[in-house]
Amino acid sequence: MKLAVVQTNPIFGDIQKNIDNAIKLMSNTPADFYVLPELFNTGYNFSSRNELENLAEPIEGQTFFVLQAFARQRQCYIAYGFAESDGIVFFNSAALVGPEGLIGLYRKVHLFYREKLFFKKGNLGFPVFNTVFGKVGIMICFDWYFPEAMRTLTIKGAQLVAHPSNLVLPYCPDAMITRCLENKVFAATADRVGSEENADIKLSFIGKSEIVSPKGEILCRLDETSEGVGLAEIDLSVALNKKLNEYNELFEDRDQRSYF
Amino acid sequence: MKLAVVQTNPIFGDIQKNIDNAIKLMSNTPADFYVLPELFNTGYNFSSRNELENLAEPIEGQTFFVLQAFARQRQCYIAYGFAESDGIVFFNSAALVGPEGLIGLYRKVHLFYREKLFFKKGNLGFPVFNTVFGKVGIMICFDWYFPEAMRTLTIKGAQLVAHPSNLVLPYCPDAMITRCLENKVFAATADRVGSEENADIKLSFIGKSEIVSPKGEILCRLDETSEGVGLAEIDLSVALNKKLNEYNELFEDRDQRSYF
Repeated sequence: MKLAVVQTNPIFGDIQKNIDNAIKLMSNTPADFYVLPELFNTGYNFSSRNELENLAEPIEGQTFFVLQAFARQRQCYIAYGFAESDGIVFFNSAALVGPEGLIGLYRKVHLFYREKLFFKKGNLGFPVFNTVFGKVGIMICFDWYFPEAMRTLTIKGAQLVAHPSNLVLPYCPDAMITRCLENKVFAATADRVGSEENADIKLSFIGKSEIVSPKGEILCRLDETSEGVGLAEIDLSVALNKKLNEYNELFEDRDQRSYF
Repeated sequence: MKLAVVQTNPIFGDIQKNIDNAIKLMSNTPADFYVLPELFNTGYNFSSRNELENLAEPIEGQTFFVLQAFARQRQCYIAYGFAESDGIVFFNSAALVGPEGLIGLYRKVHLFYREKLFFKKGNLGFPVFNTVFGKVGIMICFDWYFPEAMRTLTIKGAQLVAHPSNLVLPYCPDAMITRCLENKVFAATADRVGSEENADIKLSFIGKSEIVSPKGEILCRLDETSEGVGLAEIDLSVALNKKLNEYNELFEDRDQRSYF
C-alpha cells in the first residue's frame, strides 16, 4: 500500500480553506491511505470555549462529508484530526474514513497544555479499526509521550498507528523510532507547520511529519517549515511478526506479573 | 551527587582480572554512585550451562565482597551485573551495594537471545531501593526494550534507573532519551566494549555508556571502543517532579482505564 503523511499549515478558523488545501495536496499525490494533522480543519490555538463552539463539528459534519467524497472517488482511506462537538462537550478527535464511509472515531486521551481548558478527555479508549490493508489504530499528538497508548493499540492488533499531530515540543520525531521498535509497528505522524498566536500564547509547530517502520527506519520525513506530502510504500503484514530473533518474540516476552 | 558509568572490556571467564580492572577504573575516578556493566565480572557469551555453573556466584560471593569493601572505604554505591547462582538455577542479576553492605538484588526479567538457554527469567519483579541520595531502580540491558520495565520502576518511585548493559543492538543509547522523557527520571546505562567469540557466535558490544536526565539531555556519553568512566553531577530530587507544564503532570495524566 502507498501510505501518505500530509503536512499542512492551517489558517486558524478557516475550515473551508483548510479542507480545500488538504484536498489539493492529496489530489496531487495519489495514495491508498492518507494521514492529516490534528485539528487540521480548524487550527489549534483556541482562546475560548466559545471560539471552539463555533468551529467544532459533529462527527458527520462538513469536514467528514468532503473527505468521505474524496475517499469514495479515490478508493482511499483518510485519518484526520478535527474538533468534535458532541452536544455540549468537545473532543480533540480523529476519524478514519474510507471508501465505505465512516470507519472509526478516536477521542484524544492525553490532552496537552491548554487543550485541557477547552476539550474533554477522550472516553473511547484506544480502538483499532479494520481496513482492507490491515488493522489501524489512531493516537493524537501528545499521546506519543505515554508508551501505554501505542502499546494498547498494538496489543489490540494495530499494524499501523495513524498519528495526527500538532507538535510543539521537539522530541516526538525521534521518539517515534523507539515507539515503533518497542511495538514492531508502522507509524505515520502527520504534523503541521507554521505558528498561531492569540492573546494568550504563541505556538510554533515543528513539522517533520514522518513514516517509521517496525524496524525503526525512517521511511520518509518532511522538513520543518513546508507544506507537503511524505510517501512510503509499505506492507502492513510485516507488522504481524513480533519476532526479534529466534529466541525473542516481543509480546511473548512481556511479563505482566513483573509489571506494576 | 556524582554519578558514574563505568565502561569496561571484560575478559571472558577471568573474574579476578575483571574485578581488578573495575576497581582500578573506579579508584581513579571518585564518585558517589557507580554503575558497572551487565555480567561485568564473568563476561557475557556463555556457550554452555556447565561454563556458567563454573563462573556464577551466590549473591554474597567473591565479586560482592570486593565491591562491598570498596563501597565501605569510599562511602559510595555500586550497581553491578553478575551471573548469580541460586543453588541449581542461574539468574542474570544485578546487585546494589553501599557503605552499609548489600542493599538490593534484581534478576533480569527480559532475557535476550541465547541468554534464554542458560539463565532463568527473573522472579523478583522490578524492585526499588532506598539510598541516601534517593530511590534507585535497576534494569538490565534488553529490559530497556520494554517500556513497562522503566515505567514500573518510576511508578514505584525510582528517581534513578541504574542500567547495567552489554548492548549488541544499536538502538538503546538514543531510545534511553525517550525512556527518560516519558518517565522524567535519570538513567545511567553502563555498557561494555569489545567482542566475544565462541563456537556458536561472535558478539560485538557497542559501548556508548551514558547518563541521561529527566529532560532527555545526554549528560555524558562514552565512545564505542574505549574503557573509561563517564561522570555527571546530578540532583535526584529533580526526578520527583513529574510536571511538564502548568497543565500536565506525567503520572496524573496516565489514564489506566483507557489502556489494555
